[in-house]
Amino acid sequence: MLNPCDDAFIARLQGLLPEGRLTAPEPRYLEEPRGRWHGLAGVLARPGSVEEVATIIRACADARVGVVPWGGGTGLVGGQVMPEGPAPVLVSLERMAALRGAYPAENALVVEAGMILADVQAEAARIGRLFPLSLASEGSCRIGGNLASNAGGTAVLRYGNARDLCLGLEAVMPDGSIFNGLTRLRKDNEGYDLRHLLIGSEGTLGVITAASLRLFPRPAATVVAMLAVPSPMAALDLLALAQGRLPGMVSSFEIIHRMGFDFLAEVMPEVRAPFDPLPDWLVLVELGLPMGLDAEMAMANLYDAADDAGLVTDGVIATSDAQAAALWQLREMIPEANRRIGAISSHDISLPLSAIPGFVTAAPDALRPLGEFRINCFGHLGDGNLHWNVFPARGANRKVDEALRDKVKATVHDMVHALGGSVAAEHGVGRLKTGDLQRYADPGKLAAMRSIKAALDPQGIMNPGAVLG
Amino acid sequence: MLNPCDDAFIARLQGLLPEGRLTAPEPRYLEEPRGRWHGLAGVLARPGSVEEVATIIRACADARVGVVPWGGGTGLVGGQVMPEGPAPVLVSLERMAALRGAYPAENALVVEAGMILADVQAEAARIGRLFPLSLASEGSCRIGGNLASNAGGTAVLRYGNARDLCLGLEAVMPDGSIFNGLTRLRKDNEGYDLRHLLIGSEGTLGVITAASLRLFPRPAATVVAMLAVPSPMAALDLLALAQGRLPGMVSSFEIIHRMGFDFLAEVMPEVRAPFDPLPDWLVLVELGLPMGLDAEMAMANLYDAADDAGLVTDGVIATSDAQAAALWQLREMIPEANRRIGAISSHDISLPLSAIPGFVTAAPDALRPLGEFRINCFGHLGDGNLHWNVFPARGANRKVDEALRDKVKATVHDMVHALGGSVAAEHGVGRLKTGDLQRYADPGKLAAMRSIKAALDPQGIMNPGAVLG
Repeated sequence: MLNPCDDAFIARLQGLLPEGRLTAPEPRYLEEPRGRWHGLAGVLARPGSVEEVATIIRACADARVGVVPWGGGTGLVGGQVMPEGPAPVLVSLERMAALRGAYPAENALVVEAGMILADVQAEAARIGRLFPLSLASEGSCRIGGNLASNAGGTAVLRYGNARDLCLGLEAVMPDGSIFNGLTRLRKDNEGYDLRHLLIGSEGTLGVITAASLRLFPRPAATVVAMLAVPSPMAALDLLALAQGRLPGMVSSFEIIHRMGFDFLAEVMPEVRAPFDPLPDWLVLVELGLPMGLDAEMAMANLYDAADDAGLVTDGVIATSDAQAAALWQLREMIPEANRRIGAISSHDISLPLSAIPGFVTAAPDALRPLGEFRINCFGHLGDGNLHWNVFPARGANRKVDEALRDKVKATVHDMVHALGGSVAAEHGVGRLKTGDLQRYADPGKLAAMRSIKAALDPQGIMNPGAVLG
Repeated sequence: MLNPCDDAFIARLQGLLPEGRLTAPEPRYLEEPRGRWHGLAGVLARPGSVEEVATIIRACADARVGVVPWGGGTGLVGGQVMPEGPAPVLVSLERMAALRGAYPAENALVVEAGMILADVQAEAARIGRLFPLSLASEGSCRIGGNLASNAGGTAVLRYGNARDLCLGLEAVMPDGSIFNGLTRLRKDNEGYDLRHLLIGSEGTLGVITAASLRLFPRPAATVVAMLAVPSPMAALDLLALAQGRLPGMVSSFEIIHRMGFDFLAEVMPEVRAPFDPLPDWLVLVELGLPMGLDAEMAMANLYDAADDAGLVTDGVIATSDAQAAALWQLREMIPEANRRIGAISSHDISLPLSAIPGFVTAAPDALRPLGEFRINCFGHLGDGNLHWNVFPARGANRKVDEALRDKVKATVHDMVHALGGSVAAEHGVGRLKTGDLQRYADPGKLAAMRSIKAALDPQGIMNPGAVLG
């Protein structure tokens, strides 16, 4: 159905754009972090304005050429690489990284889609505000990609997902028309919410070119602790206790199984474990507090209340910013340790909170018939979002058998689905989970998704093969 | 294009449904609170299950008969009454008012669409949680209508609009298929966000039949104050001061112009004004606080800091729940006083916060050439949402000239639009603002809305004439 982006099309596109916008893509634009796909592209376009993006999309629509939007290239589900089919135009937003406006009195920031997430955080800090979206790749991912994939991260419990942090969007639609929706309003019911349709559509319904973002006042004080808990159930009770005492002030609530520290000991032996002996389950808690509350005392009081209720067995409360950063650093090194060990199958799942203790017990049992594995379970417990990753037994052959990988994945995902969970929690569907979407999504929802895709992108030029397959 | 719901169709529908589901509509189903429209209906359907709703919609789709969904009938923009065209089926959700599940550990509640908002609040309170959506009609509006219109209210500043309080939906789509999306997940990126497309679509893309709602821990203490401020600008500075000291703890921040109290004195003389003499501008502030902070002291400290900065001139801090309720009562009586006085034109507008002081000064000047008016400005300042209502001069003829009404409305709305605001902030578009939507909405957005409507409801049976006209 689609035509390739060939020399003739590139020449035509060149005539419509300023010099230097089109180049052959360097290899890094065709790779993705887990190395499972290698992308195709006829040309790399780096437009400098929304009008240039519109020109490119219009030309692609006219010629039925595919478009793959490219942010920071950090996505973990292959949304940014198209490995087969007629070569598309790769559209990188990196040249559109400007701050369009800062509005401290409105707690709002308007930025272009190519701004790196860490720079968005820094722009917010410069006006004394907080942009709370925070995730491991924040030094290289770009806000347009964060919104296209509705990124999650470590502060969702308090501040919501990427979609909840967006007040308005500018985007180019699949016919090349521009959606001017950069509102900074908190209440706006002028028609259907196109913003939320584009957010999370992973580039299949349009290209986000700029966003109006929601900022927050910075907490007067923050405090971080790493606490040993007797079980995931106790961790959930501790979360409820913390939220009941300090409503809206629990910023992060991460769970870490001791396997994460075993992995660190194995591949990064220089890292010191926070407890000796290591408990089976740890939680990392961050509180962000108002004026008038002593942060360390608030955490100590929470610890005492949890201790009285039998919900904690040990703990470390950071007494300096450096200690707090070191505790977070431990959490953030686990994905790197995972990479070095080499997973058979990684699962970005979410569950209703009350289903988590049951899942954590039952899922390893369900896998046992398939072989001997090590399971590293960590993630954003407060959001019900676990990174539940399956690894070969210690010393076993690290080469992954594809058939085994598929069986492990299906076993885990079937269980998650049966418990009312999601198999695409914070990383999106991309190209990795198109089969899962067909298998698990509600048929009524899938039918509506297909209708919407056909209506807005009748030729299917936007990110071909992603999400709906 | 559509066929009327005539006797033959009613008979056919009767054959598909249990006894007692279809009746002639009593007059109250065909009226709306402002008395501007009178609705048509061939029959009133009161289905008892999502399957019955699906049966009705499927039959309507087959016969090309219009469907008007009906919640509590409290909408202020005519979304629930169809005044012309072939008589539709009115579908009231009132029989579907059950609690489907309460999940305190997950801060979630699953309810049917016909549950009255106050009952939703009560169900949340029963499990020790807060459902923060709160608005004047909460004793009769229903949660399905709140979601269909993305209702706002007095706690949006802290907790968001109705859409932000919804984790998942069950709905019947325009072809009669069922969307089973009653997830209780905090992170779910399995495909496009159909939930947010249905929320705020005012029954034009489907009928919401149940919702999974987001609950919150209840603040350990709340405190309410009514403060006199020298100007709207000072009110905004006070808001920033409060949020900076108590991030995330300012639950409500309402502004009231003294005209509201003048109106109360005129039509409800039994109501006592909170200050004598009355200042021009008042704000009503509610804080919701954690354990460890003394609520009255937190408010008193805020007052002192505001006083030092010249942002307040007087104030009353409630020292009991009864006093707090009385202060809120004053605020909530203003719409009733407005009704008794009789507005020429009422505007539910939102503005970027920093545009508000300029608007409040300039808008009366812009109206002056059109005549002598009294303006009552009050609303949810923290959300930039004003109810900016224009009344005849005292003693003037109360009969409203339609041409004048249109001129007033256009003058106000043009100014709001030019300032980057919304002319449909929290009440929706309904049938009142279809012209405004065509006039002010971004063309790219309107085109996408039309494509989506045509794709999901090709026959245009869902709430004909609403939103897109």
